[in-house]
Amino acid sequence: MAAYANKLITIEPISGDATARIREVIKKAGDGSVIRFSAECYHFWPEKADEAYYFISNNQHGLKRIAFPLIRKKNITIDGGGARFIFHGEVVPIVVDRSENITLCNFSVDWERPFFSQGEVEEVDAGSVIVKLDPEVYPYRVENRRLIFEGEGWESPLTEGVFAFDTKTRAPKYRSGDSMGLGFPECIDVQSLGNGCIRLCEEFPELPENGDIIVFRHYRRLTPGVFMIESRELRFESITLHQAGGMGFIAQFCENVELRQCIVKPSKGRIFSVCADASHFVNCRGLIQLKDCFFENQLDDPLNVHGLNLRVEEVLDARSVIVERVHYEQHGVGIGCVGDVVQFSHNQTLLSYEGNVIASLESINARFARVRFDRDLPKSLFPGHVIENMSWTPNLHVRGCTVRGNRARGLLISTPGEVRIERNRISAGGSGIKISGDANFWFESGGVRDVLIRDNDFGECCYGSPSWGHSVIDIDPEILEPEKNEACFHQNIRIEDNRFATSGKGILFARSVEGLRFTGNTIEPTGFYPERSVTHAVTLEACQSVEIAENLGLEALQESVQASKMMSAHL
Amino acid sequence: MAAYANKLITIEPISGDATARIREVIKKAGDGSVIRFSAECYHFWPEKADEAYYFISNNQHGLKRIAFPLIRKKNITIDGGGARFIFHGEVVPIVVDRSENITLCNFSVDWERPFFSQGEVEEVDAGSVIVKLDPEVYPYRVENRRLIFEGEGWESPLTEGVFAFDTKTRAPKYRSGDSMGLGFPECIDVQSLGNGCIRLCEEFPELPENGDIIVFRHYRRLTPGVFMIESRELRFESITLHQAGGMGFIAQFCENVELRQCIVKPSKGRIFSVCADASHFVNCRGLIQLKDCFFENQLDDPLNVHGLNLRVEEVLDARSVIVERVHYEQHGVGIGCVGDVVQFSHNQTLLSYEGNVIASLESINARFARVRFDRDLPKSLFPGHVIENMSWTPNLHVRGCTVRGNRARGLLISTPGEVRIERNRISAGGSGIKISGDANFWFESGGVRDVLIRDNDFGECCYGSPSWGHSVIDIDPEILEPEKNEACFHQNIRIEDNRFATSGKGILFARSVEGLRFTGNTIEPTGFYPERSVTHAVTLEACQSVEIAENLGLEALQESVQASKMMSAHL
Repeated sequence: MAAYANKLITIEPISGDATARIREVIKKAGDGSVIRFSAECYHFWPEKADEAYYFISNNQHGLKRIAFPLIRKKNITIDGGGARFIFHGEVVPIVVDRSENITLCNFSVDWERPFFSQGEVEEVDAGSVIVKLDPEVYPYRVENRRLIFEGEGWESPLTEGVFAFDTKTRAPKYRSGDSMGLGFPECIDVQSLGNGCIRLCEEFPELPENGDIIVFRHYRRLTPGVFMIESRELRFESITLHQAGGMGFIAQFCENVELRQCIVKPSKGRIFSVCADASHFVNCRGLIQLKDCFFENQLDDPLNVHGLNLRVEEVLDARSVIVERVHYEQHGVGIGCVGDVVQFSHNQTLLSYEGNVIASLESINARFARVRFDRDLPKSLFPGHVIENMSWTPNLHVRGCTVRGNRARGLLISTPGEVRIERNRISAGGSGIKISGDANFWFESGGVRDVLIRDNDFGECCYGSPSWGHSVIDIDPEILEPEKNEACFHQNIRIEDNRFATSGKGILFARSVEGLRFTGNTIEPTGFYPERSVTHAVTLEACQSVEIAENLGLEALQESVQASKMMSAHL
Repeated sequence: MAAYANKLITIEPISGDATARIREVIKKAGDGSVIRFSAECYHFWPEKADEAYYFISNNQHGLKRIAFPLIRKKNITIDGGGARFIFHGEVVPIVVDRSENITLCNFSVDWERPFFSQGEVEEVDAGSVIVKLDPEVYPYRVENRRLIFEGEGWESPLTEGVFAFDTKTRAPKYRSGDSMGLGFPECIDVQSLGNGCIRLCEEFPELPENGDIIVFRHYRRLTPGVFMIESRELRFESITLHQAGGMGFIAQFCENVELRQCIVKPSKGRIFSVCADASHFVNCRGLIQLKDCFFENQLDDPLNVHGLNLRVEEVLDARSVIVERVHYEQHGVGIGCVGDVVQFSHNQTLLSYEGNVIASLESINARFARVRFDRDLPKSLFPGHVIENMSWTPNLHVRGCTVRGNRARGLLISTPGEVRIERNRISAGGSGIKISGDANFWFESGGVRDVLIRDNDFGECCYGSPSWGHSVIDIDPEILEPEKNEACFHQNIRIEDNRFATSGKGILFARSVEGLRFTGNTIEPTGFYPERSVTHAVTLEACQSVEIAENLGLEALQESVQASKMMSAHL
């Protein structure tokens, strides 16, 4: 094929399946190409789509069909010109793979038949909930007391729970959480009542009310909206994701990614947007920027930035180990490159005790890899300890964004880079900001070193499942006995000049932070939701060098600060 | 890693999981290496096994864990020395990929927990069958009236039918076929009765008897025993496969493969061996040889040799088409190489009308590919017609082999190469030899040109499901109106000096063969099974140049020959 280079390619309206044409255009697009759509509706099916096997972190790996395969490309702009891209069935809209300087802008993404379904609560009693679905929009059948949803080329039993949404707040129902208090039951007994009505035959601890919307999560994270891997200089501007069978934007081992005025929100008639996190960055570097974005009603967090803790499975010799990507959604995700700097940490304390440099890497399979280092391994290294790749940790700037109405938490931040969270409006069913880290379950690294959370408006938070968080800002690295650590896991977190307009008392929880400043903030309880069981506005555990000062409204909360196992604090 | 070259590597007994050690040995093994095991038992788990994504024809494609990854190797011998290789869970024992001159010998393969299960019939009535399983050997549970079998790292609902075996004949029960006459029901209602007993609550048309064994086929073809791809000069000698979660030996795009004294048979206490075909060769070339092999009780045919008919999906320009691998088990299988000679055929007549040469190939996805040819396409080419790669068609010699007691048919032969089937003992639930070809469902090509079936002993055949075949030798290309064809699809088939000791009358069915000789055969009806409904010993349809002569016992069968639409025959 002759390649177009440095040229404007105008995409005419396309009737029927646009996939083959767009694939051809992208394959041919050379350096400097601009691909411009018109403000039309383009449809994409998986049949003629490109294909590749991808291990997509925090989503499901697999053989993917891809509508826009930006693979090994340089200097490409795709300008949607206001186009609506409608997908049908199992296809990943956009993959950016081993590419550089890619700009995508001005289009929306939706699915004709989304991967989740919804219905309205018609009747409730202690032993069941009756929900009415529109089978034209959300085709389903009941077979052998099991609900099976039908899509375009797929069908999927209800396996991932139900979620109650409140139509007044357009947010998860107060306290309802995952499956209305049941968590994630393996299956839910269902009875078909005809006329689109089904009875969920379970004793839900948190009953919904008539008129609430139940979202049925019946699909694994197979087809995220935009997947970026091993690419750099990526810009996404004015893109709206209404749906995705997985996360919205997911990047791994990328450098410099910017989302500007990107929107994740439901399309008309739906109360859910994308199936999982709106945006998620794993082992990226350079600068991750979110500017003036709006993320709403996705079924998981709006943002998560983290690295991976690789568990040492076996020490082979003085310089070699076998490492394991433990969590199944991390299987097959890259480990890094020769020359990358790593850090060894203890899995209980999370504290790092030595660094090294990768000399060679050999994949065994998606779970295990053999890593050899430049220098001898520390004597203190034992199986179970973790390795974190420090060469792939980004700076993060989130400014002017709005997040709200989603399941779970707000912004999840785990990077030692420069973090600036400013002028955002943050509301979430769980914590609005969570800074965690663990080496035993999620294996998401790592400790922060420079976080500034300033001038944000926090709205209602922590109104969902208690497991989603008790405090608006939750700094809770999973360390067994943090007070026994010589050093703190997190460092240098300043929370300044923010406004907290939320029900309930939990504003800040912090564990194992050295250098924590909480100053100039205004707390204005709304009373919108009932009080939570948290007893203190600020709870500190095993922190050092804490300053809590000049906050408006904090003192009005009885028992405003609880501090335990503190090493030094100026409260 | 330093490579061993030209050297003998002796494998000591290994306690626990041998996978990591064997993987390392194979990775290091250089040109001329001989890897020799001792006559011990070695165990393999998937955890530390090599991994690769393979599209395995007539099996399931996927990300495979591999215990013996013979990938890009030359001149390697693995001599099991009488070792028993026991596998645990989802692992493909042996992959030979882009390798040359590989010899494997002297070992057996089995699984601790096989991928199928079996139980004994305890009670039968019109509406149900009660089966007793040993839950220690075949762990299962009944959940919501569904049978779910549990394995090592897998569980699997009963989805692929049940199969009744007769303990006296150790073969599929007379006439019972697939799911005792039900075919492949989507699910079977099951009731747990405790004590390892379950009730299959279905009205089976062909009821089993107390003491019969029911085999539960509850696993897809994920882990075949030996997978060969794009390799040449492969020899397998004295290898016994007791189990495999898929076919036994499966090769695609390989050249010169020999199986000598290879055995496929159940291990002690089981009535089933491998889950599908014992051996299967797709688009191979050179010589495929089976010598003194013994294939028993596998859940599909002992041998199938064929090419692929690729359906033309779209004619793009004077020299380019998009082709489709239609059957889902052919998705992702290779199409060929630049320079390969292909043949265009009509999908109804199956007759080829022109050849061409592949100039370039571009994969779109596992289903579609774009093919460009050296010369202009024939004017008569239309979507729906098929393309067969003639550069990848083998000669086939099967000598001294025994096949018996399996589900379905015997030897399936579809290759224009030299075919020699001599001195074998052939018994099968369906036809003993099937020479077919179709371009509308299985898409398995192609027409034969030189087949000699001589001096074989045919035992009981066609005692299973009528859909498995009515005649011991079944030549039934799927052509809609064969008599309208100017030429025959198959050519030059000689069936000479064989002995047919079988119940029932159907000895030979032949459609669209030019040059068919059936001479010097002896037919000795056994009366073991009841008569079948076939009315003639020999049935001919639209054949040319037929000679049926000097057969002993053929005349004793009333209405011995039926010929229709014949063009010329010497009967």
